[in-house]
Amino acid sequence: MAAEHPRFDPDSFRRQAHRVVDWMADYLIGVGERPVQPHAPPGAILAQIPDAPPEMPESFERIMADFARIIVPGLTHWGHPGFFAYFPANSSPPSVLAEMLTATIGSQCMAWSTSPAATELEQATMEWLRQMIGLPNGFTGVIQDTASTATLVALITARDAKTRGRGGDGKTEGRKDGMGEEANGLPVERLCVYTSEEANSSVPKGARLAGFRPDRVRLIPTHEDCSMRIDALEAAIARDRTEHLTPACVVATVGTTSTTAIDAVPAINTICRREGAWLHVDAAWAGSAAVLPEMRWIFDGVAEADSVVLNPHKWLLVNFDCSAYFVRDPDALLRSFSASAEYLTTAEGSRVPNFRDWGIQLGRRFRALKLWFVIRTYGVEGLRAMLREHLRLAALFAGWVDAHPDFERLAPAPLGLVCFRQIAVRGKPPGGTLDSLNERLLSRLHATGRIMLTQTRVKGRFALRLALGHLTTTEAHVREAWELITRTATELGA
Amino acid sequence: MAAEHPRFDPDSFRRQAHRVVDWMADYLIGVGERPVQPHAPPGAILAQIPDAPPEMPESFERIMADFARIIVPGLTHWGHPGFFAYFPANSSPPSVLAEMLTATIGSQCMAWSTSPAATELEQATMEWLRQMIGLPNGFTGVIQDTASTATLVALITARDAKTRGRGGDGKTEGRKDGMGEEANGLPVERLCVYTSEEANSSVPKGARLAGFRPDRVRLIPTHEDCSMRIDALEAAIARDRTEHLTPACVVATVGTTSTTAIDAVPAINTICRREGAWLHVDAAWAGSAAVLPEMRWIFDGVAEADSVVLNPHKWLLVNFDCSAYFVRDPDALLRSFSASAEYLTTAEGSRVPNFRDWGIQLGRRFRALKLWFVIRTYGVEGLRAMLREHLRLAALFAGWVDAHPDFERLAPAPLGLVCFRQIAVRGKPPGGTLDSLNERLLSRLHATGRIMLTQTRVKGRFALRLALGHLTTTEAHVREAWELITRTATELGA
Repeated sequence: MAAEHPRFDPDSFRRQAHRVVDWMADYLIGVGERPVQPHAPPGAILAQIPDAPPEMPESFERIMADFARIIVPGLTHWGHPGFFAYFPANSSPPSVLAEMLTATIGSQCMAWSTSPAATELEQATMEWLRQMIGLPNGFTGVIQDTASTATLVALITARDAKTRGRGGDGKTEGRKDGMGEEANGLPVERLCVYTSEEANSSVPKGARLAGFRPDRVRLIPTHEDCSMRIDALEAAIARDRTEHLTPACVVATVGTTSTTAIDAVPAINTICRREGAWLHVDAAWAGSAAVLPEMRWIFDGVAEADSVVLNPHKWLLVNFDCSAYFVRDPDALLRSFSASAEYLTTAEGSRVPNFRDWGIQLGRRFRALKLWFVIRTYGVEGLRAMLREHLRLAALFAGWVDAHPDFERLAPAPLGLVCFRQIAVRGKPPGGTLDSLNERLLSRLHATGRIMLTQTRVKGRFALRLALGHLTTTEAHVREAWELITRTATELGA
Repeated sequence: MAAEHPRFDPDSFRRQAHRVVDWMADYLIGVGERPVQPHAPPGAILAQIPDAPPEMPESFERIMADFARIIVPGLTHWGHPGFFAYFPANSSPPSVLAEMLTATIGSQCMAWSTSPAATELEQATMEWLRQMIGLPNGFTGVIQDTASTATLVALITARDAKTRGRGGDGKTEGRKDGMGEEANGLPVERLCVYTSEEANSSVPKGARLAGFRPDRVRLIPTHEDCSMRIDALEAAIARDRTEHLTPACVVATVGTTSTTAIDAVPAINTICRREGAWLHVDAAWAGSAAVLPEMRWIFDGVAEADSVVLNPHKWLLVNFDCSAYFVRDPDALLRSFSASAEYLTTAEGSRVPNFRDWGIQLGRRFRALKLWFVIRTYGVEGLRAMLREHLRLAALFAGWVDAHPDFERLAPAPLGLVCFRQIAVRGKPPGGTLDSLNERLLSRLHATGRIMLTQTRVKGRFALRLALGHLTTTEAHVREAWELITRTATELGA
């Protein structure tokens, strides 16, 4: 058998795409009726996919049918209004429309000349976002895929600021031949990274990936509110200095993944300036809240940081992936990330931003388009209204927890996340530990298929996390979730 | 002014998405009539975007109109049938349809449980692809975003294999407390990376990002055909060994970006096994050709490598981004890239693959879906027919170059890329250098807006690159390109 060389058939594409659009709209309308997560055991989907690829073409109808029959029931529905797990990874109509266009035009955004409009729209939308979150105009933004990547980029930049000159990269102006290596940069083994024990897993992971020694990544203890203890940071740095180690980077968190704790960035900044260390602020989820003037306080001190990351794909209705990375000194970024080759040379050279030089990847998607569509569709006021509504719902839920004798809140809830646990069953202490009680509660809740939460530990105590952030989540959904939680809780002693 | 909390309006979304689909189909039909790249100077797009974000919502009609009026004319059209630049970054109808679905469901594929079907479809499609390119079944695949990332992942894994134990990560079984640090791993400063001087820019960049010393990244000279000189690799390693340096990784290239040169992987593998170095094969573009049994020879020796990357988004009709990374020892990958946190813990634990532990990013898009749609829509035979057609067109073009007295080919063209230059104007030597003649030729060709090529240097000589790989490029387009090139060339002496 032989298949023909595939050709583009615009009529088929148009017809199929219209059918896909109807599926999309129907899915979005009906997603709340599906179980929020599947219950099939590992391997159940795989078992339905042939072991070998098809030799001959299959029809659109058959593929769509298999998609609906095999794949969709096996999905965890991140857009389900009962999805309160992790942090949201958003989707919204204008963002989906922009993704459709992005996929169609297929622009490759590695250099200005490979898609001038994409590069300049990225400049424009990053500038919009900078204004929206109140960063001073000394910051320049670039879109990365994820906060993991942005934080790794920050750590590599911080590392290179200390090691540069070592190994003859010839990029440091201050480098003097004939001097010892030491004068030209420190070995990475002598560098330390500091972050709190509550930092996202991507921070210690990123430090390891950047080549910092694992035993020189300091996870600083936290206060009762889970923010970094500044005294402990000072002590760790002092200890390292006595051992002739050098602080290279501090990663502060504005809104930890576990409980949305907010580190004291102004104090950390003072330390970083004194120590000559890079200050990177991970505001991946919470940073979007700075769009609200009344929440701008969460960015106290961030204006003095060297870099900051926030994810419009988490709480600004932009589809994953779209992570906004702001730096005060783009030249520092370029020194670590620029690459050249004859086949990449363009007539404009470095007179224009070539964003491949602003991060890890050479190839880059046209991510600015969805940000542009979303900001314009909702307006900054519309996004503020959404954020305010989520804050209101979180406060409402926190209030219910606080008022219920069988429950307690385990951490402050300044933003859209509430961490709580069950402490009694109909007013009586449970038989086993509170941890096992809450593990059972979470498991029972998930078995209903109506809501999905995730767990964390707050100062050692097993906690349930309820995170707001979806376009489609309303007070009714939050109320329904609470009713389900309290009803399920009463059954645990039975 | 205040905007309302945005709500999801399914009817508007459906209507707008249908309109977007019509724009998409019309764009794909008409893209060949547009100039392949814009001629606006830097800043021309930016000047049309307001300096500040809109406070209030704007209509879909207005946004789409601005998209068509401001953005689209400023794009370099990677899907234009006259786009022969770089390597293609593909798009195809089934891949676009899958991207529409992916954007809609918004699945987050960091762990098995965050979307079981996405994880298992990734396992299934990577297994299909492994069979398609003839890798032995000891290889396991994972989707990365780009080859830059995959190569960085390989370099970090290779680095850690040599440095592990240093710094108390406690992950090496062979680690013995009480022994000197040396016995527990080497300092990264003592490690060397080898790749050819023709390797993609992402290889030396990746080595720097992974923390290897820039002066220990060896760019090995190449033969006249631009493949790595094995004798020079041997000599470099021997020299390093006498200086007590340790080879950590060799990155071989199957199909260099400049000319598609193919390194002698079997010989490199022998050296790597002897030296205990990691062998990573960068087959980002060319690897797709291994789907053809008659081209399987390009993968000679790759079965013995430690890792290999190829990009279905380059030459298998899958939308950017989708990079397939195959490893022989997933455990080595997991040792470097796994991360844990209470809020990431799932009931299934490590009994299932959690792909966040297989790469840099915690958040991951559902990329397997487009691969599944594309392979099924065309069938492996259909993809083979497309690859054969591109190889035929490249050979045809190479033959025209070889037969024309005013042109010469500058490198072997075993795949879909032809590197050539003009050497005479209507049979007579040009006034200036050949380099300047060809720079003018390229500039004039681009001014027509009909085709786009990129340049490279082959052994110092300025060359034009013509790369095949689009679904929509036919013999007529290649013939038209050649006619335009030869006609323009005759005018250069005028």
